Amino acid sequence: MKYNVEVKIELKKGMLNPEASTIERALDLLGYKVENTSSYNTITFQMEEENESKLTKKVDDMCQRLLTNPVIHNYEISIS
Amino acid sequence: MKYNVEVKIELKKGMLNPEASTIERALDLLGYKVENTSSYNTITFQMEEENESKLTKKVDDMCQRLLTNPVIHNYEISIS
Repeated sequence: MKYNVEVKIELKKGMLNPEASTIERALDLLGYKVENTSSYNTITFQMEEENESKLTKKVDDMCQRLLTNPVIHNYEISIS
Repeated sequence: MKYNVEVKIELKKGMLNPEASTIERALDLLGYKVENTSSYNTITFQMEEENESKLTKKVDDMCQRLLTNPVIHNYEISIS
C-alpha cells in the first residue's frame, strides 16, 4: 500500500536557532514586535510498504541515517 | 491579547525544489524508494494584537514584506 509520510524536523530545546532570531530582529526593524520566534522544516513524501508499523520503522531509520541530525534535532513522523 | 501565529511557507507548484530532489536521490542511494518528495518551512511566533482580523492583516503584510518571496512561495497563516 502507498502511504503519505510527513516528517517534522525541529531543533531540540536549548539549541540556538539563528534563522528565527534573524527573522525576529528583521521584523522588529520593520516595526513588527513578535516574540518566541521559532522555525521548523517539514519533509513530505509517498512510500510503498506492507503495513504502517513496518513503514514507521523504515522512516525512523531514514530519519536517523539521513533526514535529521539526531544530536540536535527532534523529529515527528505522521503517516496517512 | 497575545496570539500564537504559524506561517507555513512552501514553493509554488511547478517551482523546482532542489532540497527535495536531493533528499529523494540520497534516500534512493541508501535503498529507500520514495516518491513525490516535497518540503516546506514553518515559522511560529507570538504577537500582541487587539483582535484576530487586525492580526491576520499584519501577518499578511509581514509575509509580503519579509517572510516569503511572493513570486515563488505560497503561504498559509494559522492563528490560535
